[in-house]
Amino acid sequence: MTTHVCLTARALGADAVWVAEKDAALERGIAAVVGRFGGAFEVRTGVPWKKAMQRFAGVKLHLTMYGQPIDGVMDEVLRASRGRDLMLVVGASKVPGDVYALADYNIAVGNQPHSEVAALAIALDRLGRGAWARAKFKGAKVAIRPSARGKVVVAAGRKLEEE
Amino acid sequence: MTTHVCLTARALGADAVWVAEKDAALERGIAAVVGRFGGAFEVRTGVPWKKAMQRFAGVKLHLTMYGQPIDGVMDEVLRASRGRDLMLVVGASKVPGDVYALADYNIAVGNQPHSEVAALAIALDRLGRGAWARAKFKGAKVAIRPSARGKVVVAAGRKLEEE
Repeated sequence: MTTHVCLTARALGADAVWVAEKDAALERGIAAVVGRFGGAFEVRTGVPWKKAMQRFAGVKLHLTMYGQPIDGVMDEVLRASRGRDLMLVVGASKVPGDVYALADYNIAVGNQPHSEVAALAIALDRLGRGAWARAKFKGAKVAIRPSARGKVVVAAGRKLEEE
Repeated sequence: MTTHVCLTARALGADAVWVAEKDAALERGIAAVVGRFGGAFEVRTGVPWKKAMQRFAGVKLHLTMYGQPIDGVMDEVLRASRGRDLMLVVGASKVPGDVYALADYNIAVGNQPHSEVAALAIALDRLGRGAWARAKFKGAKVAIRPSARGKVVVAAGRKLEEE
């Protein structure tokens, strides 16, 4: 699950993911993806979540099914975060109550039982107004060439694999 | 992971999820969510995926990082699927090659390594133009009342739990 959170964050434009639990295998796995597919995405694990939220100088959004509907607060969040860093907080099923208080906004991507990966994806898409679709991942060793059928992987502009 | 796919599909407006592998526990778990939070969502497991794709009369979209960027084909897909059923196909890391051929469209939510839950979420959001946010889940025993802080659960309009 945490791998999915990290890949989603990277693919949709986040700079980094911080994970409360120490997980060296996760760090290695994501570093391998970054090494291959490029970009400057970073994963840190073993980060004390409460201190991280308290010390964060930017705007903090907690994604939760109990929060305010995302569409109603998005304009306000975009105004409040202009020129500032943005932290999105997602948790597994049971999130400590302090998270609700430490967040600047508690935001729901639908007030239904959900997936934190899905909520993160839609929040990043809305916050960035879909800009992830035009992002370049610098230093990539390989890249996917979009295809109507099959798989095309290119390396430094040269076709590498095709199925 | 499959639970996340099902909850995401339900929360973002799908009518049903069909799963290739038989999984009675998954069916029970999702049925319990539907019983509590309402709506007419259905999960069927043990569905032969190839037959299901071959027999499906509507438009079939396969979500894959190798496909055509979603933003470029969305208008065409919306035109093609007007008044017809829509099937979105997502798989784990290794999807059989036949899926690419059986799909009407192979669509990428970013040509980067990703999460099928995130791809499904964004695809459903775009296909429905965000209509999930206004959806009613009929017959719900409980519902979340959106809240800037904390958790408010209501039952038949009566406040049930608050933290």
